[in-house]
Amino acid sequence: MMIIMHPGAPKEQVSGVIAEIEKQKLSSHVIEGVEQTIIGAVGDGHYVAKEIFEALPGVMSVQRISQPYKLASRQFHEQDSVFQLDGFTIGENQIPIIAGPCSVESREQILEIAQSVKEAGANALRGGVFKPRTSPYAFQGLGEEGLEYMAEAREKTGLPIVVEVMAVSQIKMMEKYVDVFQLGARNMQNFNLLRAIGETRTPVLFKRGMSATIEEMLMASEYILSGGNTKVMLCERGIRTFETATRNTTDINAIPVLKKLTHLPVIIDPSHSTGDSAYVSAIAKAGVAAGADGVIVEVHNDPAHAISDGKQSLTPEAFAKMVKQVKAIAEAVDRRLVDQHERV
Amino acid sequence: MMIIMHPGAPKEQVSGVIAEIEKQKLSSHVIEGVEQTIIGAVGDGHYVAKEIFEALPGVMSVQRISQPYKLASRQFHEQDSVFQLDGFTIGENQIPIIAGPCSVESREQILEIAQSVKEAGANALRGGVFKPRTSPYAFQGLGEEGLEYMAEAREKTGLPIVVEVMAVSQIKMMEKYVDVFQLGARNMQNFNLLRAIGETRTPVLFKRGMSATIEEMLMASEYILSGGNTKVMLCERGIRTFETATRNTTDINAIPVLKKLTHLPVIIDPSHSTGDSAYVSAIAKAGVAAGADGVIVEVHNDPAHAISDGKQSLTPEAFAKMVKQVKAIAEAVDRRLVDQHERV
Amino acid sequence: MMIIMHPGAPKEQVSGVIAEIEKQKLSSHVIEGVEQTIIGAVGDGHYVAKEIFEALPGVMSVQRISQPYKLASRQFHEQDSVFQLDGFTIGENQIPIIAGPCSVESREQILEIAQSVKEAGANALRGGVFKPRTSPYAFQGLGEEGLEYMAEAREKTGLPIVVEVMAVSQIKMMEKYVDVFQLGARNMQNFNLLRAIGETRTPVLFKRGMSATIEEMLMASEYILSGGNTKVMLCERGIRTFETATRNTTDINAIPVLKKLTHLPVIIDPSHSTGDSAYVSAIAKAGVAAGADGVIVEVHNDPAHAISDGKQSLTPEAFAKMVKQVKAIAEAVDRRLVDQHERV
Amino acid sequence: MMIIMHPGAPKEQVSGVIAEIEKQKLSSHVIEGVEQTIIGAVGDGHYVAKEIFEALPGVMSVQRISQPYKLASRQFHEQDSVFQLDGFTIGENQIPIIAGPCSVESREQILEIAQSVKEAGANALRGGVFKPRTSPYAFQGLGEEGLEYMAEAREKTGLPIVVEVMAVSQIKMMEKYVDVFQLGARNMQNFNLLRAIGETRTPVLFKRGMSATIEEMLMASEYILSGGNTKVMLCERGIRTFETATRNTTDINAIPVLKKLTHLPVIIDPSHSTGDSAYVSAIAKAGVAAGADGVIVEVHNDPAHAISDGKQSLTPEAFAKMVKQVKAIAEAVDRRLVDQHERV
Repeated sequence: MMIIMHPGAPKEQVSGVIAEIEKQKLSSHVIEGVEQTIIGAVGDGHYVAKEIFEALPGVMSVQRISQPYKLASRQFHEQDSVFQLDGFTIGENQIPIIAGPCSVESREQILEIAQSVKEAGANALRGGVFKPRTSPYAFQGLGEEGLEYMAEAREKTGLPIVVEVMAVSQIKMMEKYVDVFQLGARNMQNFNLLRAIGETRTPVLFKRGMSATIEEMLMASEYILSGGNTKVMLCERGIRTFETATRNTTDINAIPVLKKLTHLPVIIDPSHSTGDSAYVSAIAKAGVAAGADGVIVEVHNDPAHAISDGKQSLTPEAFAKMVKQVKAIAEAVDRRLVDQHERV
Repeated sequence: MMIIMHPGAPKEQVSGVIAEIEKQKLSSHVIEGVEQTIIGAVGDGHYVAKEIFEALPGVMSVQRISQPYKLASRQFHEQDSVFQLDGFTIGENQIPIIAGPCSVESREQILEIAQSVKEAGANALRGGVFKPRTSPYAFQGLGEEGLEYMAEAREKTGLPIVVEVMAVSQIKMMEKYVDVFQLGARNMQNFNLLRAIGETRTPVLFKRGMSATIEEMLMASEYILSGGNTKVMLCERGIRTFETATRNTTDINAIPVLKKLTHLPVIIDPSHSTGDSAYVSAIAKAGVAAGADGVIVEVHNDPAHAISDGKQSLTPEAFAKMVKQVKAIAEAVDRRLVDQHERV
Repeated sequence: MMIIMHPGAPKEQVSGVIAEIEKQKLSSHVIEGVEQTIIGAVGDGHYVAKEIFEALPGVMSVQRISQPYKLASRQFHEQDSVFQLDGFTIGENQIPIIAGPCSVESREQILEIAQSVKEAGANALRGGVFKPRTSPYAFQGLGEEGLEYMAEAREKTGLPIVVEVMAVSQIKMMEKYVDVFQLGARNMQNFNLLRAIGETRTPVLFKRGMSATIEEMLMASEYILSGGNTKVMLCERGIRTFETATRNTTDINAIPVLKKLTHLPVIIDPSHSTGDSAYVSAIAKAGVAAGADGVIVEVHNDPAHAISDGKQSLTPEAFAKMVKQVKAIAEAVDRRLVDQHERV
Repeated sequence: MMIIMHPGAPKEQVSGVIAEIEKQKLSSHVIEGVEQTIIGAVGDGHYVAKEIFEALPGVMSVQRISQPYKLASRQFHEQDSVFQLDGFTIGENQIPIIAGPCSVESREQILEIAQSVKEAGANALRGGVFKPRTSPYAFQGLGEEGLEYMAEAREKTGLPIVVEVMAVSQIKMMEKYVDVFQLGARNMQNFNLLRAIGETRTPVLFKRGMSATIEEMLMASEYILSGGNTKVMLCERGIRTFETATRNTTDINAIPVLKKLTHLPVIIDPSHSTGDSAYVSAIAKAGVAAGADGVIVEVHNDPAHAISDGKQSLTPEAFAKMVKQVKAIAEAVDRRLVDQHERV
């Protein structure tokens, strides 16, 4: 941490900062500049909040040097994290594809889609049963009934299932059903929920908040990791910017940045990051070309009548085409799609 | 709703859209343009999601005409909402000032601050007992113990208390203590929590999410209003932009925009919208000049040692000075601060 | 400047950085942290670009301590800049109001508006004669003919005139007519133009770019100041954000931030920062309440038929009402509007 | 164009809008909604500004249906634009790579880099001779001397040259030297310059402004196209967002969006869109995977001592590696890099 004093800050203020540095078990190092004094705080400062120094008298600003997270950092875990998901591996050369509808609407719907996406090459099935909707008057999901349909779909296809968890009170019930918890963008800083997920040992697909920085994303993932749940996959799903031609702006830079900063696997979600099925395949390819370790996409058997997110859902046919294209890109970057035959 | 078809969309697709319009109990109206067909959907469309039409074959885009909210809209409730808060009125010519620390840290701290802000002119006391922190290693709040201290502070000063609620499970317990629930920015689209607050009759200070549009804010408030809880105060607390000179960007435009679109009272929070005590007073004044109906600010007796948000907290002396300045602005726009004597 | 090395950067890389620091006539100061080495570069670093260090081997990042501008900085010029504009003073307790149409459309139009705004209390007349339009098919301005009408309006009303300059080639011709050059938001980083304006001694109304940070704005103003033209007024006119309810987002925080960082006067432009005449008065008041030293607004005698920016233009009646309201705010912050009688 | 009236707008206001529609040679079509009247304006409205209607009394908002550009639109030019650049083709299955330093620093430097990038597979050489710098105290470019060195580099390597033009006054002189004008991000809405480039017949690499929407980019390109210069390549070079981990955010979505909206070729610039050489290769690959028709990158023989943009410049070795990777991606999307042998 570097603490920059206001020009002309008196000695007592410098001493005050030094005292606080020592209180935090760091050692201090003073540089007298021409206009300003700078104080370095040396030691393990990953978990010392810079806010502690910002409010001290005479402090102009505080610059972090060490990252405000540690368990997620590649600095302390150089190798890529690798973990198993029901028979296949995440974080190695293989690239899994997770597909399914935004919402589970009915038993027939989910069984049909599960079969379609499996045939087209999916490695896991997604489907929401609790739906956070911007309008209180919209469909809110099937709840546990939906989980039963998801479980049946898994049984019939062998695909592990990924379902969003939205509240601490849902965790226990959901654990019986799901292979992977999805932590949604709106809950990225719902710290109670993060802690509770950290207590489980269920893998997590962790989505970046719509206006979260990469650093905030990694800090939030630390809530889960610090509970002992190390199976966290980070997911880029688009950020909010001034551009309105697409629903969100895919932060494709985040893929190589995350691969540099963290050992956790990184997944691209081109459905939410574009909001338009016309662009999903192009962005899925871009994500894998940039280094993503997996792809999650929305697929619906009848997008025109989907209860939610129809506009961004691929038909099973379009999905099958996308899988072929992503396969070619994966091979061009010396990786490959997960082979379904191996898995079963 | 106006549904714009792709150039060259065939007649069957136009018919498909018309059928859906009728299914939604709206009536359709077709305009054949030179390049494109446009279909108007006429009727009460406030609660018809535009997503329903976006995914239909041949649809290029959908434009809303009616607002996607109704209870919050001034269109159906022309007069300003006015409601009582423990002896004084919100939403009339008077401007209340809510002040207090970010976190309740101890009994002594909150009693001292409560006394100071009361003397300086505050009309209500704020203080958090559950703290959402970006780092899992930071202080997480005193919980119910903190509520007891807040209640004691109320008893001693007569100031009603405003406390953030962060989970559905906290509501019942908190209702016994608090006069106003604060709904934090990170929970603005936590729809389960919104619904649950809507079931209570406790007034709510509803904060705009860091990257929420004004429209999304009004739609989310509809979750509370539709439960029958009509005592909602909207709070502008800054949005995330590219500018880094301040922690957030105060969207001052939101004040007159909200006053036009909704009948709900609008509060300015200059502490979070700037993140720096040096700018709080200027922005408090700006907010009231722009039409805000109240001000909420962070005040701490010892900002340099506050456990959280010290940098943006005013000292009691700076707060007293701010109150005087805001008073002059309030009078310049033909309003006045709440008179403490009236209230007791 | 603090240069932060990558963890594990070898000694030669540290030496390389030290050598470059010395080459820049700064002195170096090394802090060996637990994970990383940090090198302070001490001396007058205002004009040393941090890019020089960023590309050196082993450097992870570079943090500026000193501001990358000097002439604009309050650090070296503590008192507010004060300068005369045709009989009245900018940068003191008085607040001038500049008003007029977006474009000069005809002799009759500008003479009529000039008279109206003068009667309502304006202290200077604005009007564009070269119009940068997003569409190549729109009206592009009257050019020098428009300047003649502006000059005539000045003669008839006594109001000094403010006109946007868009190219180096226009400066010489325009200098004969205008009292103040306006430098438009799109040209904020047109460095050739900035330099050329710096060579003149005509006061400049310098508009912030739509996506420029406050720091970039001050750096760009340095181009003008370093040429010897010290009469620069900075103008906040809104930034681009995700919010679409208004055309731009007024960065009201920028007003107190600029007042702290620079001695130059700061003007608020609520017409462009909102894009809607319904919000102009509220934001003009907010700007003055936050500390602005002046207001510039668009006024048109017939907004419905203005060639450009009709939506955001006030009628003369609405303008007169705004002046009264801004006057009350100015007095509430211990300032006052420029008195027209003094001036003539 | 759809004109949406305020609720309760009287008949005269509706008639006023209809009159204006007719004045614009469009025909009107009225829909009486439950709360509001909507008026469709039917006809060729590409070049009718919506501002004309926005300021009319009673108008609440105006929605465009037709795009505000026509020459750039794929709607009127279905096939991809294809044009020649000194022996190779832009806009077909081949993907050219343009490489070179940010600034031409000396004869030796540019000749050496030209040779290196050619050997590594570049198809054109870039290099700036007029440098827009955010600080007035930084290197401003070699001017015409730099052009002579660029021309010599072309002669020695056979690579066509791409140089940024920054002012109308430079065009004539530069035309003698350059094969492609680069129009920089800061000048994207410098309409005088756009018009002047439109008068030439020199191909243009047209960069998106840092905060320009895709629609604004296409509207601005119309300035060049409408002058008769049809050889315009659009370049995505990153936009400004809240994320600070990279200098800009690559708007990768813009690639497929542009390919849908326009027939013009689209180039990706991963050097500026990331600002960090560590991420350039990943984003170059992502761009081509998403459908880009070419790549432009900064390469420097000694990035640590580059006068500008060293941090984002690749070494010739890193560039050669990038070319190999981009080649694999190009082939995975059924395209190929331009074959240098064909070209000479």
